Amino acid sequence: MIRQITVVGVGLIGGSFALDLKRAGLVDKVVGVGRSEANLERAQQLGVIDVAMPVEEAVKDADLILVSTPVGQMARVFGTIATHAKADAIITDAGSTKADVAALYRQYLAERLAYCLPAHPIAGTEQSGAAAARYGLYQHRKVVLCPLAQTTAQTIAAVEALWQACGAEIYYLDVQVHDEVLASVSHLPHLLAFAYMVALSRKPNVDDCLNLAATGFRDFTRIAGSSPEMWRDVALGNRETLLQQIRHYQDTLAQLYDTLALQEGESLLTFIETAQTVRRDWEKKHVRGQAGYREP
Amino acid sequence: MIRQITVVGVGLIGGSFALDLKRAGLVDKVVGVGRSEANLERAQQLGVIDVAMPVEEAVKDADLILVSTPVGQMARVFGTIATHAKADAIITDAGSTKADVAALYRQYLAERLAYCLPAHPIAGTEQSGAAAARYGLYQHRKVVLCPLAQTTAQTIAAVEALWQACGAEIYYLDVQVHDEVLASVSHLPHLLAFAYMVALSRKPNVDDCLNLAATGFRDFTRIAGSSPEMWRDVALGNRETLLQQIRHYQDTLAQLYDTLALQEGESLLTFIETAQTVRRDWEKKHVRGQAGYREP
Repeated sequence: MIRQITVVGVGLIGGSFALDLKRAGLVDKVVGVGRSEANLERAQQLGVIDVAMPVEEAVKDADLILVSTPVGQMARVFGTIATHAKADAIITDAGSTKADVAALYRQYLAERLAYCLPAHPIAGTEQSGAAAARYGLYQHRKVVLCPLAQTTAQTIAAVEALWQACGAEIYYLDVQVHDEVLASVSHLPHLLAFAYMVALSRKPNVDDCLNLAATGFRDFTRIAGSSPEMWRDVALGNRETLLQQIRHYQDTLAQLYDTLALQEGESLLTFIETAQTVRRDWEKKHVRGQAGYREP
Repeated sequence: MIRQITVVGVGLIGGSFALDLKRAGLVDKVVGVGRSEANLERAQQLGVIDVAMPVEEAVKDADLILVSTPVGQMARVFGTIATHAKADAIITDAGSTKADVAALYRQYLAERLAYCLPAHPIAGTEQSGAAAARYGLYQHRKVVLCPLAQTTAQTIAAVEALWQACGAEIYYLDVQVHDEVLASVSHLPHLLAFAYMVALSRKPNVDDCLNLAATGFRDFTRIAGSSPEMWRDVALGNRETLLQQIRHYQDTLAQLYDTLALQEGESLLTFIETAQTVRRDWEKKHVRGQAGYREP
């Protein structure tokens, strides 16, 4: 039983973590920190947190601190933790990028890296705010832990146990590998979906288009409804990798363009077959039968 | 009550149409035509069709013919209909492109255009084949009708009544407008998703990537699992419009690239906010409360 967990950034990710740990009886008191009074009040009403406090006060007695703000906020939060938290408080985060966040740990929390564990619960949705928090969000979801060289086995075990109590599967990755892989299957798709929505919004007949948009559009663009602040920070935080991956995508799209322009039916078919095969194989292997899977 | 409907191409679209009309008691006999014996047998076992026949025989006594094959097959099917179907048989289709299909009607069925009605039920999923057919697929879905100059009001009324019996909302659009709008909200997203999957498949660490792909990836790429033959035909059939729209998308993506490369945080935020706003407004207006809507 942990006496106090402090969640800095009480949204979908931090809020759902708190809910599950309370229900599992693993934590006595959850303190919330946030920029929006309304959001914190909502979090308290919903039982996501027990009490809200300013960050300086909130980290003071915490045994474990989860920093689940957008990555752009973390430097400031880590600075406050450095000066206000107990020396042996465990500090972890939920940032979608890890190399930049690991650098922040080293910069701001150099004295206490033994207690620090960069982490990334892969369980976002396009929703945000405390009201989006829910029990069981992490059931069968993946949580990537990226220990620093200084992180102790004890710290790792403590954080791992909490995520496992939420039902998550634990992965260990080097921060660079994490950022490359997540750029491929999460960050890049978000940028592509944002660009698609912006391109559509610039068409003179955008309303007629939206009027006939159906389920394919709905699913393809769902992630375009995600938090702008969070995704700006992700894009900036993983910039080099993302720029390289956008270029790779641009090359592939240009190839598809040429194939279509030249009416090369066979090449076009092969291209689409490759896409279909990879997608269907992935679904067979990773999706069917899992909790949270929705039949199409 | 229609005596006989013939469905050429018994898959998700044609099969679901037949199921709903049978259940509504609007048709006595459904005859199926297809290239795959196994698929036709499955269709018969599932009660999607009453009997399977070669196309020449199948269209002979049909009162209404739905051509729901990939568009690339339609020329051949229309040619057979021209020589084998009753003079007053109503002929409609389910092609995802309409200008090219309207041209085929005019080319192959010039003598009987009064009975012809190009149509597009917007209800695809990434699944295909008779086994994917299901009751209620068209409930609250949109069906676009694109009458030819020669199509009679009687023909329109007959086809409209059937789609309404399936629960669909009817729209009337000019073929060019249809193709432009559908390119924007359906054809282009499919091509973008295909290109994304192909780009991913070419990465040396593709398996590691797929292993950490989550719900954002799942939804963004769902349409990449769609039928290659169908989508090759859609792309070729709507080529000029799609090439133009790919270029528009490439320009927008290049703008996002530059914004990120230059680390213009404010512009990046504005870009993503635009995407989020358009997507959220669309969802509020068009999705919530509708049948088939899945809570995220």
